Order: sequence, then structure tokens, then C-alpha cells
Amino acid sequence: MEEKRRRLLERARGRVSEAYSSPDHSIIQAINAYKEIEKIENIVYERLEEWFGMHFPEVKLNSHETFSKLIANIKNKEDITEEMIKDITGDGYKKVYNALKSESHAINFDENEGGTIKTLANTELMLIESQKSIESYIEKATKKIMPNVTYLIDCKIAAELLSKAGSLERLASLPASTVQLLGAEKALFKHLKFGGKPPKYGVLFKLPQLSTLSKKDRGRVARVYATKISIAARADAFSKRFIADKLKESLNSAVNKKR
Amino acid sequence: MEEKRRRLLERARGRVSEAYSSPDHSIIQAINAYKEIEKIENIVYERLEEWFGMHFPEVKLNSHETFSKLIANIKNKEDITEEMIKDITGDGYKKVYNALKSESHAINFDENEGGTIKTLANTELMLIESQKSIESYIEKATKKIMPNVTYLIDCKIAAELLSKAGSLERLASLPASTVQLLGAEKALFKHLKFGGKPPKYGVLFKLPQLSTLSKKDRGRVARVYATKISIAARADAFSKRFIADKLKESLNSAVNKKR
Repeated sequence: MEEKRRRLLERARGRVSEAYSSPDHSIIQAINAYKEIEKIENIVYERLEEWFGMHFPEVKLNSHETFSKLIANIKNKEDITEEMIKDITGDGYKKVYNALKSESHAINFDENEGGTIKTLANTELMLIESQKSIESYIEKATKKIMPNVTYLIDCKIAAELLSKAGSLERLASLPASTVQLLGAEKALFKHLKFGGKPPKYGVLFKLPQLSTLSKKDRGRVARVYATKISIAARADAFSKRFIADKLKESLNSAVNKKR
Repeated sequence: MEEKRRRLLERARGRVSEAYSSPDHSIIQAINAYKEIEKIENIVYERLEEWFGMHFPEVKLNSHETFSKLIANIKNKEDITEEMIKDITGDGYKKVYNALKSESHAINFDENEGGTIKTLANTELMLIESQKSIESYIEKATKKIMPNVTYLIDCKIAAELLSKAGSLERLASLPASTVQLLGAEKALFKHLKFGGKPPKYGVLFKLPQLSTLSKKDRGRVARVYATKISIAARADAFSKRFIADKLKESLNSAVNKKR
């Protein structure tokens, strides 16, 4: 009896382990992490901009990364040199340099505050690095297990579809109409419960091919994409053959066909 | 005319600069950053726990920092040695070591995934460092401008009160009953609009001296604290005299007095 129990437990463990060893789960973790870090990175950036901006209100930079690098590297106002700024911001350093040196309301921080802002800037840089690392992992991993789907659409969107479906096999077995609405569950249930317009797309709205279209075309194009993604997912999950080049051709012609 | 305008602008700039040079604003930035990072750090930790846990489900560690250090440092399962783990976790390393080495369902990550999880762990470590740095800045800065208030209550709570009030001067000029409810604005307006019970405390509820009390005593003690904090804030903002030792005595006797 004891022995039997032990063996049963072992087998159960083996099964769990096998299920988790599928790369689907890692991709799902990764895309969720990516979306979290994306939000977090913005929150930290905004705080940094506000806090640093109290001391150097004239400095404006569009890139979160360059802005954080600048903060992480500058010391006292007096020690700022043109070369230093050029190393960090590249072209356009003149403007930043002048802004940093401008007399209007810059206040030197005391050592404690400066150090804390710098740590926050380094945290922001680490978040950006982490985001890049997760992104490149998602790209590699999705291309490996979903060569067909990722040939048609962006890797992160493919990963999101995977995450909403739960696994590649489940994604492959969903009807195209469900794939079209993955990620729009909330709007769908609202429609079912209270009436009103049904949603036309969920995650797929993030496709640049879709979001740049006029509103009246989006539904149709989303439908085309969902159909082709569905076929591609089946090839990825079951037949393991690469058919995406032909799929893409027929996708493009279906998208371009005016009704 | 031109000259007059220039001089007026200069004066306005000077005023803004002067207003912002007050350390109040830096403390307000810092406490907001602290609260944001606190939430963020938890989100990243949970993600890390879930993702890493897929591969090493047996590893349990209470400290976010030790857990992240462990992930950031381990390589392949085969390379894990007892000394390595001991360096990271200190006492209790045996259990962690066995969990890491256990055969049940550990799956080696491929290089890409492992690297990404490590980057995420390093991000978590950076967040923890940033949190500590902000905390220590808040402590130093509040002790400097609010020696009396911080003698009575925790520095972070003092900073939160400051942030809710907007500045030290404003905090000092608020009646004690308002100080008591700072941070409970939502509950207060709900009470005013819909009736029901009024709130008894806002930020002050975070005081360990308050949250450990029975519910019926909390209102009274919050009132006592608010009164003394109000007096302390006035001393910090206006008279600049240190009166907190006497205040604390009378605070303690008022708290301990049973009605």
C-alpha cells in the first residue's frame, strides 16, 4: 500500500513536471511580466521626471532611457561639462547642456536627496533593461514554438493570445471567432448582459495593421487576421509544418480586397 | 516696458525657485516615490515567485531580498553547491539547498529564460535598494525639518501627513481634527454625502500604537495623537523650539488614561 502510494505520487509529480516543462507556461509568465514592467517603468519614469524636474525644470528629453542615464550620471551643477552630456545624449546635447546650466530655478540637491534620485534613476534603467531582456526572450521563445503565428503577427501579440488561451494547444483548438475576441472578454460579457454593440476585437487591436485602419474596416480585417492566425496556430501545434508564407499571401489579398 | 517685463519674470522665477527650494517638496516627492516603489516591488516579487516557482517549486524563502539574490546567483542545477547557498541565505541554507536539489519537478531553464529571470531578480534587488535609499532620505530629511513631529511618530507617517497637507506650514496651521482625518478624505466625503459613520482616522491608522488597539479605543487615541502632532508641527514650523520630549510625556499619559 505504502509503496503504491509512493509510486502514484511520483507519477503525479512527473505529470505536473511534464505539463510545466512546456515552453507555453514560460512564455505566459514572460508576457505577463512584460506587461507589468511596462506599466511600472512608466510610473517610475513619471516620478523621476517630477522629482528631478523640481530641480532642473528646463531639461526635456523624450527617451526614458537617456533621461534616466542623465540623472544617474550628473553630479553638481558646477561639474557638468559639455562632453559629459554629449556622451549621454548624443546629438542635441547643446540644448540639454544649456538647460542644465540655466540659472532660472535650478536648485542643487543636498547629497542625500541627490543620491536617492540617482538610485531611482538607476532603478528605472534596470527596469528598461529588464523589459528588453523579457522582450527578446519572448521573441525567441515564440518564434520557436509558433513559427507560423509569429510570421503573421508581432511576437508580443502572439504571446498575449497564447496567454489568454492558456496554451498553444488550446489556442489552436479555438474557433477563429473566439481568437478574434480573445482579450475582449469584459466587453463581450457586457454585451451579453446589457446589450449594446458586441466587441469586434480584443488583443488583436494592438496590431498596427488594425489600429491604423478606419473604424469601419477594423472589424473585417480583425476577422481575416483571426482566421489566418487560427490556421497558423493549428499548424504550429499539430502538423508542425511551415505554411505561413502562403498564409500571409492570402491574408494580404483578403485584407486588401474591398467589399 | 521690455525691461520691466524681464524684471517681473525674473522675480516670478525667483519666487517659484524659492518655493521649490523648501525641503517640503522633496520630502513629498520622496514619500510618494516610496509608496509607489513599495507596490511595484511586491508586484515584481510575486511575478518572480510564480515564474521561478515553475522551475523550483520547493524553494520557499520569506525575505524578498534573499529570494531575489538566490535567483540572481544560481546557475544550472548541477553547479549549485552548499557553500554558495550558505553565502546567500545564511542559516537555514540546508533546507533551501535540498529544495533546489530535489528531483521532484525542477526543470532546467534554457539559457534565454534563465537570463531573463535573473535580470528580473536583479531588478527586484534594485527596487529594494531604491526603497531603502528613499526611506533613509525620508528619515534624514523629516528629522531635520520636523524634529518635534518625528520624535512622536514614525518618519514615514510624518512625511505622509506632510504630503497630504501640502507643506509644513499648512500642516501646522490645520486644526487637530483635520490632522486626525488627513488621508481619510474619501471616507469623510462618503460620510458627508451618504451619511453613515464618520471616519475616525486617516494616515494615523498606520501608527502601530493605534492599529494594535481594540476598535473602541482607536478613535480616542487617534484624537490624542492628532492634538499632539498639531502642537509639534507648530513648533517645527514657527517657533523652531524642541518641545517634543514634554509632548511625548503628556501624550503617553493621555493615551494611558482610561475614561
